[in-house]
Amino acid sequence: MDDAATDGADDGASERPGEPQTGDAFGEMLRDHHAGEETYQIIERDDGWIGPSAGGEHYFSEFDEWTELEQRAMGHVDGRVLDVGCGAGRHALYLQNEGHDVTGIDLSPGAVAVARERGVEDVREVDVADVAEAFDADTFDSVVMMGNNFGLVGTADRAPGILDALAEVATDDATLVAQTRDPTVTDDDDHVAYHEFNRERGRLPGALRIRVRYGGLATEWSDYLMAAPETMADLAGETPWDLDETLEPDEQLTDAGGDYVGILTR
Amino acid sequence: MDDAATDGADDGASERPGEPQTGDAFGEMLRDHHAGEETYQIIERDDGWIGPSAGGEHYFSEFDEWTELEQRAMGHVDGRVLDVGCGAGRHALYLQNEGHDVTGIDLSPGAVAVARERGVEDVREVDVADVAEAFDADTFDSVVMMGNNFGLVGTADRAPGILDALAEVATDDATLVAQTRDPTVTDDDDHVAYHEFNRERGRLPGALRIRVRYGGLATEWSDYLMAAPETMADLAGETPWDLDETLEPDEQLTDAGGDYVGILTR
Repeated sequence: MDDAATDGADDGASERPGEPQTGDAFGEMLRDHHAGEETYQIIERDDGWIGPSAGGEHYFSEFDEWTELEQRAMGHVDGRVLDVGCGAGRHALYLQNEGHDVTGIDLSPGAVAVARERGVEDVREVDVADVAEAFDADTFDSVVMMGNNFGLVGTADRAPGILDALAEVATDDATLVAQTRDPTVTDDDDHVAYHEFNRERGRLPGALRIRVRYGGLATEWSDYLMAAPETMADLAGETPWDLDETLEPDEQLTDAGGDYVGILTR
Repeated sequence: MDDAATDGADDGASERPGEPQTGDAFGEMLRDHHAGEETYQIIERDDGWIGPSAGGEHYFSEFDEWTELEQRAMGHVDGRVLDVGCGAGRHALYLQNEGHDVTGIDLSPGAVAVARERGVEDVREVDVADVAEAFDADTFDSVVMMGNNFGLVGTADRAPGILDALAEVATDDATLVAQTRDPTVTDDDDHVAYHEFNRERGRLPGALRIRVRYGGLATEWSDYLMAAPETMADLAGETPWDLDETLEPDEQLTDAGGDYVGILTR
């Protein structure tokens, strides 16, 4: 966070060319899209791979623009909802309109501000790892981790603790609706090599370590897990949650595959 | 170039997360597009700013897909042509089809390979700074630096030497057709701040220091100049070239401005 005082460089000419400022890159992207600007989002991975991800438009999309898989997942949501990593609030707004009492949480101050401006009634800057401190026990009937946000469980080491915390704030008959993808469904050499690199350093193949870059900003490096259904079931098995079923897309998207939504209960 | 042997890191876990491999990122992007893959190109600037640039499609575009400004610029090309930074050969192929004898040069081995496969008859891996060593004097009737490739003159310090070298391999009545843009035509705070940063370190405001990133690869950092017409005229003034006229677009593009093509003669 206090990245300004790291060394004694004065004129900044070229001691670390290209080094961005650490900040709320994701939130700034959402703010700019909300202000009508064209935006983009770049994902940098800790093996040096870089690529474009969804720009602002995706995070502001309406129900009828979503994939059929995401639409279908909403049918599993019931009662009071916790939306983990709510972003600009696309799921929270939809569920609120459907009559649910929704609480959105996001680590990004910009995301929280934009979701609030767009009408999400209860949205807070909370890390999913801290939900048990932020909310009372037995509060939520549904927890949604859409848009691959099951990834926010981070790594195999951190996942059980986070799933435990989510169970603590959820009711006994709560449902966890968790979207991710099986990372091994790829023939991209860079990705296959990264999975192997992860295995070698004792991580799950899809335990991405990434940051978001936008303009002159980069988020902190963070862990984001892509998990096959067997992995999701294994991680949940150490917690009160069980993977009941997986929703698969009607047809695979052209340039990706392995997408699914896990439906977990206690 | 020998970036593999820099330090003693063994497992590569996180000593420099996100550091890409130095290589022909631009050429790999062109090769992948040529092989039918979807591609992208990311530009990283030495102040930490990052953003998407044109993907492969742009570099393979045909005359009737170009801007009216680029199309009009081709009308100023005459005789034997040197295409500086030919990329995948879109200008070279068009001019070859129009009956010109064309030589394309590019620093990127991948670009040279792709341009050759696509039918550019004479294409070589040559740095524009080395043209006087690579070609006989009085060889080319036209030199084209399209797609903002006037930028390859680099910086105010290097530009006159490169323009001199181009004059040496050009005939006495040759034309230099040079596309760039006035960098100061922007209201983007990041770009305005970069121009000021450049002035403070004694560079022209539009003397970009950038690298291309694609997948796990990054090019070497290099200088790429965006120059207002007055700057182009000033730099040419120290060389045998004179800026005769500037071609302006019929209408400005929506999200950019300042685009023009300089027509220089001796």
